[in-house]
Amino acid sequence: MNTQPFAEWMAVTQDRAESALGRFLPAGDSIPARLHDAMRYATLGGGKRVRPLLAHAAGELTGATPEALDVVGCAVEMIHAYSLVHDDLPCMDDDVLRRGRPTCHVEFDEPTALLVGDSLQTMAFELLASQAIGEPKQQLEMIALLAHASGSRGMAGGQAIDLASVGKPLTQPELELMHALKTGALIRAAVLLGALAGQPLSADERNNLDRFAKRAGLLFQVVDDILDCTASTATLGKTAGKDEAADKPTYVALLGLENARAYADELRADARDALAIFGDRATRLNQLADFICHRQF
Amino acid sequence: MNTQPFAEWMAVTQDRAESALGRFLPAGDSIPARLHDAMRYATLGGGKRVRPLLAHAAGELTGATPEALDVVGCAVEMIHAYSLVHDDLPCMDDDVLRRGRPTCHVEFDEPTALLVGDSLQTMAFELLASQAIGEPKQQLEMIALLAHASGSRGMAGGQAIDLASVGKPLTQPELELMHALKTGALIRAAVLLGALAGQPLSADERNNLDRFAKRAGLLFQVVDDILDCTASTATLGKTAGKDEAADKPTYVALLGLENARAYADELRADARDALAIFGDRATRLNQLADFICHRQF
Repeated sequence: MNTQPFAEWMAVTQDRAESALGRFLPAGDSIPARLHDAMRYATLGGGKRVRPLLAHAAGELTGATPEALDVVGCAVEMIHAYSLVHDDLPCMDDDVLRRGRPTCHVEFDEPTALLVGDSLQTMAFELLASQAIGEPKQQLEMIALLAHASGSRGMAGGQAIDLASVGKPLTQPELELMHALKTGALIRAAVLLGALAGQPLSADERNNLDRFAKRAGLLFQVVDDILDCTASTATLGKTAGKDEAADKPTYVALLGLENARAYADELRADARDALAIFGDRATRLNQLADFICHRQF
Repeated sequence: MNTQPFAEWMAVTQDRAESALGRFLPAGDSIPARLHDAMRYATLGGGKRVRPLLAHAAGELTGATPEALDVVGCAVEMIHAYSLVHDDLPCMDDDVLRRGRPTCHVEFDEPTALLVGDSLQTMAFELLASQAIGEPKQQLEMIALLAHASGSRGMAGGQAIDLASVGKPLTQPELELMHALKTGALIRAAVLLGALAGQPLSADERNNLDRFAKRAGLLFQVVDDILDCTASTATLGKTAGKDEAADKPTYVALLGLENARAYADELRADARDALAIFGDRATRLNQLADFICHRQF
């Protein structure tokens, strides 16, 4: 267990996620073909698959089967993909580039992109409810958790706070609340759902895993803010520097670049600490947290 | 049982649905307040509540509790409300009037309306997964059914076909496929979920209920098309005549007004026939189908 080098595990798991998504999404020529084609365009062929990776890594804590983790990883990734399609729409960020390609509404059209986001969200819940991935009671808990993480008190709520905060100076607690919802909630859900797909955790284990999941979500966002102001559009595959251009509050704007980096290291250390209780079973999660911390794109 | 006059039952059940929605939706002043306020605006204070009424009526077939039916009715109604908010957006129907009031993006703004639709959809699934409304296995079936009915192979798919069909002459089978998805799938889900919230049905009962549910969905749409061309904007509370103005395919355009009415009567008769197996337990469903057939708004 865990003897495979991390880079290899990551590549294999990303391929696995890609192929599971391809299998679960409706065929591109099934009616309505344009919508299904656009759903596949918006979901397949790109992305770091951070959320499926987290689900698979967390599943190692509880002995979840790879098949159950495929379902969980795809469900969370579909929610993520839906949020990107809607965030890119003209009435939101009005962005034209995503994963190095035209955004969904540019490649297709705006009404189709709206329906793509709507339908990807629905499909995430359909997947979690229709596939046999554990005890029914546990599946219900997973659905409730994913829904809470992505709705108005989670991801969509963070997006609403973000909209309201453009051009306003935020304090660090306000910024953390926004990101805890906007990015953190879904990262946290990926970790918890991955673990829930296996054997039950003790209360102590669950608390620690939750602490890890929250730190990982925040870490992801802090590094994202750093990359938005230091990396190029070509490297990111999405428009760089757009947060600053849009006068959006970021950790770099709030803390400065050096302090933002130091904060990322701090979060990483606390995340590692939270995983100590799991011993070797947490190797992949630790490696992933390192990857999230040091990624260049 | 069923001795209450229909009009009274309907008023009481509509009130019950309204108050359950008000209870399940986040408070309008809870963070993010503008989003929650807009979700309440888009859902409360209007609407015929046809889907909750159908769920409650179908629940009488299987002895479902009113509390479980509140959850089911609200979940389906939230999906319906989300679809209206997104359909009214400028990139879709670009409509300004709904239930006699400004549409959500007019009253608030476009990004908020987008998030309102997204969040209402999420909340529907959160409700069905987090409330105790039956055996967990049955709840999973209900979630899978609602998701299938509202996604790309259901309501959203029908919307995509509708978009693609504007200005094109459709045959009756093509028109029926579009409406079976766009309106019918969610009406059918309301009926089936209501029944699923109680004791199990036999295979024969379920087949007949499904036949009723499909006829009721089609009936609702045919009558909607008739009203769109015969009723006034003031009576409907939404813009009248807009299907014809937008050159959208409707039953009236396809069959003419008189034949559309005759087709509605035919569907009504077949729906009644499908309910015969349930005897008196189907009284409310039959009354509702009459109401759907003869409504003036």
